[in-house]
Amino acid sequence: MSFTPLTEQLIEALQVLPGVGSRSAERMALQLLERDRTGAESLTRALRSALDGVRQCERCRALSESELCTLCSDDDRDHSLICVVETPQDREAIELSGGFRGDYFILQGHLSPIDGIGPEELGIPQLIDRVRDGGIQEVVLATNATMEGEATAHYLIEQLGPLGTAVSRLAQGVSRGELGRVDSGTLSHALTDRKQVSFEHD
Amino acid sequence: MSFTPLTEQLIEALQVLPGVGSRSAERMALQLLERDRTGAESLTRALRSALDGVRQCERCRALSESELCTLCSDDDRDHSLICVVETPQDREAIELSGGFRGDYFILQGHLSPIDGIGPEELGIPQLIDRVRDGGIQEVVLATNATMEGEATAHYLIEQLGPLGTAVSRLAQGVSRGELGRVDSGTLSHALTDRKQVSFEHD
Repeated sequence: MSFTPLTEQLIEALQVLPGVGSRSAERMALQLLERDRTGAESLTRALRSALDGVRQCERCRALSESELCTLCSDDDRDHSLICVVETPQDREAIELSGGFRGDYFILQGHLSPIDGIGPEELGIPQLIDRVRDGGIQEVVLATNATMEGEATAHYLIEQLGPLGTAVSRLAQGVSRGELGRVDSGTLSHALTDRKQVSFEHD
Repeated sequence: MSFTPLTEQLIEALQVLPGVGSRSAERMALQLLERDRTGAESLTRALRSALDGVRQCERCRALSESELCTLCSDDDRDHSLICVVETPQDREAIELSGGFRGDYFILQGHLSPIDGIGPEELGIPQLIDRVRDGGIQEVVLATNATMEGEATAHYLIEQLGPLGTAVSRLAQGVSRGELGRVDSGTLSHALTDRKQVSFEHD
């Protein structure tokens, strides 16, 4: 099928969407240009507004429309506790458990050297800086109980150890697998029973 | 899962894409805002450029970046013949058959009163005007050999009859079903053997 150059560009660009290959992108482009220009206009405007208006919270890396997200700017929360999670979904799961009233830090992934995801990509230097600046009583590591999550937690323990701040991990008790699938009760319990990490230099 | 208002708007807007429901739209929005801002920027720019630069050819309703599409402005083609097809894919199939060297008119669908698609939506008044303006020797109806395609052809025959221009349909020989799936040889043959439509007033 032959398309005009700008239509070709759109088909190409649509393939940044997860799960969209060249055939679906063709179908999408034709739908937008031939049959639903109004929808295409709203989509363009929504993308523009979201790209301009939605950024990462400067403290926790959650998506936010202001410098600090709603949780980080909530004075009722204990800003001396930081719970480190891999994704916003994990933060949501812990919030629903009701077992934690501190701040979060969202890595937006886990260490994965093969995919070029190192500490920089996960914002880890930013987390270390915040702990180094003081005022933090404890960092709770709540990465997934998967190989990559464990490796990420291990790296964080190495980095946070020398700073003298307490570091803990979720208690044994969370089932093996993705944190987002653990029920609220188990999560809440695991938070209460969290274990302090002892460093080799102790 | 809770999202910022602009993220919610984007999730909503992404659902104009065919086959995209709320779950996929959430995944797409997070991918664009958290992990692939560069891709999201290109997508936004590509959408904007395509919406601004791609329109319908004023003669045949194909997507085009100028007033007339490449086929309609090609002086080597016979502009006194018009082949009426349902979709750009059907035009592509006929072009590949090599059996036709005239102009096309792309309905971008077929009559479907249930979906609110009447003659206006298919640009039929525009086609009638062009034939009425003169200079057209023959209109070849190449709508799909489906119930809707036949109904659309029937309507076109009624409208074109009084104008005195020759109207033909693809020869018997195309297999039942979507025109886009017919092989080039069959299509080329069906074009050569096309039958003149006789009107009741003849």
